[in-house]
Amino acid sequence: MKTFMGDDYLLNGDLAKELYEKHAANMPIFDYHCHLDPAAIAEDRTLGTITEAWLGKNGKGDHYKWRLLREMGVSEDYITGSRSDWEKFEKFAECFPYFVGNPVYEWCALELKEYFGITKPLCPETAKEIYDEANTKLKQLSVRKILEMSHVAHLFTTDDPTDNLAYHVKMAGDKTLKTKVYPCFRPDPAIAITLDGFLPWVKKLEAAASLSISNLQDFLDAFDRRLTYFVSLGARAADHGISELCFDPNTNYEKANAVFQKRLEGKTLSHEEVALYQSYLLLHLGEQYTKYDMVQQFHFGPIRNVNQAGYRKYGPDYGYDAIGDWPIASSLEALLSALQDKNALPKTVLYTLNDKDYLALVSAMNSFQEGPEAGKLQLGAAWWFNDHYDGIWKQMTYLSADGLLSCFIGMLTDSRSFLSFSRHDFFRRELCSFLASLVEQGRYPNDEKTLGKIVENISYQNALRYFKPKV
Amino acid sequence: MKTFMGDDYLLNGDLAKELYEKHAANMPIFDYHCHLDPAAIAEDRTLGTITEAWLGKNGKGDHYKWRLLREMGVSEDYITGSRSDWEKFEKFAECFPYFVGNPVYEWCALELKEYFGITKPLCPETAKEIYDEANTKLKQLSVRKILEMSHVAHLFTTDDPTDNLAYHVKMAGDKTLKTKVYPCFRPDPAIAITLDGFLPWVKKLEAAASLSISNLQDFLDAFDRRLTYFVSLGARAADHGISELCFDPNTNYEKANAVFQKRLEGKTLSHEEVALYQSYLLLHLGEQYTKYDMVQQFHFGPIRNVNQAGYRKYGPDYGYDAIGDWPIASSLEALLSALQDKNALPKTVLYTLNDKDYLALVSAMNSFQEGPEAGKLQLGAAWWFNDHYDGIWKQMTYLSADGLLSCFIGMLTDSRSFLSFSRHDFFRRELCSFLASLVEQGRYPNDEKTLGKIVENISYQNALRYFKPKV
Amino acid sequence: MKTFMGDDYLLNGDLAKELYEKHAANMPIFDYHCHLDPAAIAEDRTLGTITEAWLGKNGKGDHYKWRLLREMGVSEDYITGSRSDWEKFEKFAECFPYFVGNPVYEWCALELKEYFGITKPLCPETAKEIYDEANTKLKQLSVRKILEMSHVAHLFTTDDPTDNLAYHVKMAGDKTLKTKVYPCFRPDPAIAITLDGFLPWVKKLEAAASLSISNLQDFLDAFDRRLTYFVSLGARAADHGISELCFDPNTNYEKANAVFQKRLEGKTLSHEEVALYQSYLLLHLGEQYTKYDMVQQFHFGPIRNVNQAGYRKYGPDYGYDAIGDWPIASSLEALLSALQDKNALPKTVLYTLNDKDYLALVSAMNSFQEGPEAGKLQLGAAWWFNDHYDGIWKQMTYLSADGLLSCFIGMLTDSRSFLSFSRHDFFRRELCSFLASLVEQGRYPNDEKTLGKIVENISYQNALRYFKPKV
Repeated sequence: MKTFMGDDYLLNGDLAKELYEKHAANMPIFDYHCHLDPAAIAEDRTLGTITEAWLGKNGKGDHYKWRLLREMGVSEDYITGSRSDWEKFEKFAECFPYFVGNPVYEWCALELKEYFGITKPLCPETAKEIYDEANTKLKQLSVRKILEMSHVAHLFTTDDPTDNLAYHVKMAGDKTLKTKVYPCFRPDPAIAITLDGFLPWVKKLEAAASLSISNLQDFLDAFDRRLTYFVSLGARAADHGISELCFDPNTNYEKANAVFQKRLEGKTLSHEEVALYQSYLLLHLGEQYTKYDMVQQFHFGPIRNVNQAGYRKYGPDYGYDAIGDWPIASSLEALLSALQDKNALPKTVLYTLNDKDYLALVSAMNSFQEGPEAGKLQLGAAWWFNDHYDGIWKQMTYLSADGLLSCFIGMLTDSRSFLSFSRHDFFRRELCSFLASLVEQGRYPNDEKTLGKIVENISYQNALRYFKPKV
Repeated sequence: MKTFMGDDYLLNGDLAKELYEKHAANMPIFDYHCHLDPAAIAEDRTLGTITEAWLGKNGKGDHYKWRLLREMGVSEDYITGSRSDWEKFEKFAECFPYFVGNPVYEWCALELKEYFGITKPLCPETAKEIYDEANTKLKQLSVRKILEMSHVAHLFTTDDPTDNLAYHVKMAGDKTLKTKVYPCFRPDPAIAITLDGFLPWVKKLEAAASLSISNLQDFLDAFDRRLTYFVSLGARAADHGISELCFDPNTNYEKANAVFQKRLEGKTLSHEEVALYQSYLLLHLGEQYTKYDMVQQFHFGPIRNVNQAGYRKYGPDYGYDAIGDWPIASSLEALLSALQDKNALPKTVLYTLNDKDYLALVSAMNSFQEGPEAGKLQLGAAWWFNDHYDGIWKQMTYLSADGLLSCFIGMLTDSRSFLSFSRHDFFRRELCSFLASLVEQGRYPNDEKTLGKIVENISYQNALRYFKPKV
Repeated sequence: MKTFMGDDYLLNGDLAKELYEKHAANMPIFDYHCHLDPAAIAEDRTLGTITEAWLGKNGKGDHYKWRLLREMGVSEDYITGSRSDWEKFEKFAECFPYFVGNPVYEWCALELKEYFGITKPLCPETAKEIYDEANTKLKQLSVRKILEMSHVAHLFTTDDPTDNLAYHVKMAGDKTLKTKVYPCFRPDPAIAITLDGFLPWVKKLEAAASLSISNLQDFLDAFDRRLTYFVSLGARAADHGISELCFDPNTNYEKANAVFQKRLEGKTLSHEEVALYQSYLLLHLGEQYTKYDMVQQFHFGPIRNVNQAGYRKYGPDYGYDAIGDWPIASSLEALLSALQDKNALPKTVLYTLNDKDYLALVSAMNSFQEGPEAGKLQLGAAWWFNDHYDGIWKQMTYLSADGLLSCFIGMLTDSRSFLSFSRHDFFRRELCSFLASLVEQGRYPNDEKTLGKIVENISYQNALRYFKPKV
């Protein structure tokens, strides 16, 4: 029986330990997708109390934890409400032992250990002591200190195309910042043509690009200007959140522009019209990404705000999102094939929220691989509802069974919290055990040198090679 | 290597054994969903021969076993046909060793051990001896003795809203019955508006409720009367079998009534009309369940009677049902959200026959959790085709990865057999091993006290708190 | 830690080893589905170099390996292109250690061990040595020698209905050929009515059957003649590749013939028309297979040639196929039920490319089981993208959880390579560990005799009994 959160946590057998210690533990982090606030890094802020760091403030925070507290039957007062920081933390500590088996349990324990040196389990008896100790240490732990402690070499934030990226400009000129921080282009508001926010967003885009938009060509021109601006500040990737992809290969400029104009006039669009517009836009963007050798990331599968009453009361990102279960293969493959036909298929990372899609995604992406880029298309890391021990094991299993784990660009945090970098450690431990288990079963030679190189690649080098950030 | 069905059966490691022995083995059973016959309990019947108990009689029995025998190529004569009890049992024993890996193998072995003290494996060589010994013991084993041996504290039967619940009335006044037996409201015939049986069932409902039904309001009134009657006899839960849910949020009374009237006139309904009717009914029922603080259970996914020739020949529940594979997330979430909008979302248990749905279900339900009830929405126990070692492990994995296993209301039998209570033991052993495995890997502290409490909660206390039965 | 590819490779525990050594290792092979070239067997050809054997020649070869090399970023020159055999092999060896976790790694290692006696791991350092040694041995290794080394007793090739089966005729009269080689009827071109190749194929069928075809009856007559011819040469099985099955139970001859005639006139068919035609054809074929007591195999789920640019450049089977994710249960069950209604449901094997379908398939097939044939309907072996350690374990788990592993007809290669027979060994080792794991956990008695018989049945005897080949 292993010690709780001990040195050999998640490491099964001597080879796993050796791989981890020699090839994983000290590798830098390339966090290529997260939701960290660039202002906090630029200004080297601190995180406030452990309550703020874990449960958030002013309705912004960690919806993973909020959902668990709601499931425990805790009143919203203690979750996102008006209770004091200590009251909230005390309640959280009371619930914490009952999080057994949930990744939040292990993430919190890892964070206490890595950033505060606290190894005693959080529970009602230890709550006050841990609260005080963590808060004391948090005062000295600025964001940049955390980045250094975690060996974060590169970090991509997630940014709206209309964002002026003022903090990224500031960081680009800041020699004291050891982590390379670049923006990531997130054009979702442009795709979501049916939402109420679309027309206001077009106005914002006009302002940001200093271009008047009266047709789709204007819109794309404005868009391309913003992309160029992002690239000038080091953007190497774009990110698309896609609920249900409906790709129509018969789209063209005239059809898509007709839909766009109709929307500008405030009219309602049919499902088919939306597909024509979105398909054209995705093809256009793919061409742009290819031009800049950028990586496009597709995050498939969320259904947002399914609890409409909760959404109306609190807004988005409050823990009211769920997972879609539509078929996705045909439409995705038609999009990839259409991009390929234009010689404009960029490097692409395919994430899914629904693990039933893994096999279809791996088989789809490996129908489009081609050199010279190794792993040109990637199965995204286990994401959100899959970001836990079994989800990670499953992603590695599907990836290695039908493709090459060794080409994988590895872990990301996808987090709003600076304490989440410990999830890279979680992943690396599991990766070492995964590879070692093959050797234990006689399925791979006991070749620590090659396996060590593969561990280093997946931990950091593959992402560095793949995203090719400015240095 | 463990002894076959030994004390440490399914218990991996010392902690699992300790948790089981101290916190699981002696907990009472709350069997909140089964198909046991209330008459058999009220009249304290015996089960007949072991052949009757296992393979049934007069075309009623255990379709799990029937399917396996058919797969073995056994003639129907020996399954549901006219062969003698001994001939059937002998054939069953001949096939039995070939059930390796199937849950029926382990369930039967557990039943032999728990209720007859027989630990030798069933096979052709032991068939006669076991047959005689089991039959002798069955003569002394009345239904109530089995309930006592199994520590069944509470038990919900499954009942048609038109049922007069005469046996439940009888049991309510029977001080000698130690198990609390309550009805469960199963309104499927009211939902299944397209079936031939719908109009006759409306007639039965009229009679049961002493109300003439000429429009939907009458129908709902009659329905509500029956629900009130069920509640007066201790009903705390309703149960819906749902093949494919098509929720239409634009339903209202006028639309639903028009569909109902059309059906009363014997006309055929379109898919859209059916959706309008069913959606309205589900919303109405949800409000009623909320009013009584009842639990609604949704059993998603069966496709009934896929073997039409077999169905026509033998009728339902003969082993001719299979599993649907439609997307289910969007429609379910729209229903839950519409109920929430009416402040009428009752406690809800979501079961699925298709394990591909687990992740979507967990994410959906956890978007609607809210206090003060812990685990207000539940992922139902591994059910029917999932009720086996791997299926149970999978359900616990999905539940704990994205929600809280510790809030789980635990196991049920869903069985027509009084010998099936041993499945609770099967589940509890696996639960203890599941929790212990986290400790073994250093992922949770070695805290037997807290884990023991969680085991006790999942084994019994959570269900007691959740269903709040009359005592 | 086990030795790489050692004697206990994949065998966990003493019972697994005993089962394998005594009951699996020496059983003959019945390879009931593969894509081997009958000419190569008839003429007892050799395989050329190890590069030809592994990577192919003239654009025909192993797309599993091609896909991995493309994922590694290797130029097509070294994959299917013009580089020399040694250059290709050297590149392959350079990539090989990075295939860790992919089945191709283990398959190649097994082939080196079983057919060449080479146990050293392939890597850049050993590439030349292995290349030379394998090539030397390949010169002595004719196809028939490989069949003998592998104990292949029966082998079904895959053949077009218009094929004259000249090589099968030749082999039927060849007393020196120890393996029984029979054709398998693959009527996909007749089903695929919308493809460009349909009308030319009708012409080929006319020629092969010596029948003029002007309506559907003629077509079926020609078809039936070919089937009779196949049966006369020992065909015991048919094989259908099915992307998306759309069964329409309202089909009949008139409707289907109208669609057929329309197609003969070169007109475009609607989705509904295609369904009418295909449904009628599948019913007709099912009746024919039943008449000859043949086995029909359905391979569900591929989406062919998703990379259209690659397909146009290179043609089919180049590694550009992926996995569909449509619902499949309802349509399949309607087809099986319609066949049952005609008393014409033949023995049927249901394969799927998408592992999300396993549970639905097992539940569907077990609704149609009936004696006297044991395992009349079968869940097909883990296939293509599922043919690896975890995929095989998953297939056995689903099969045994809801049906009977002991009735399973076992492994096949589905391969174009004569060196792939070692996959049977891979499967048998895993099978023995699967069964032994149940005993280890106390879930089945330590009964080596019965388990040994089950291993022998799954390894060979079940297939022999099921397919009933001419001897």
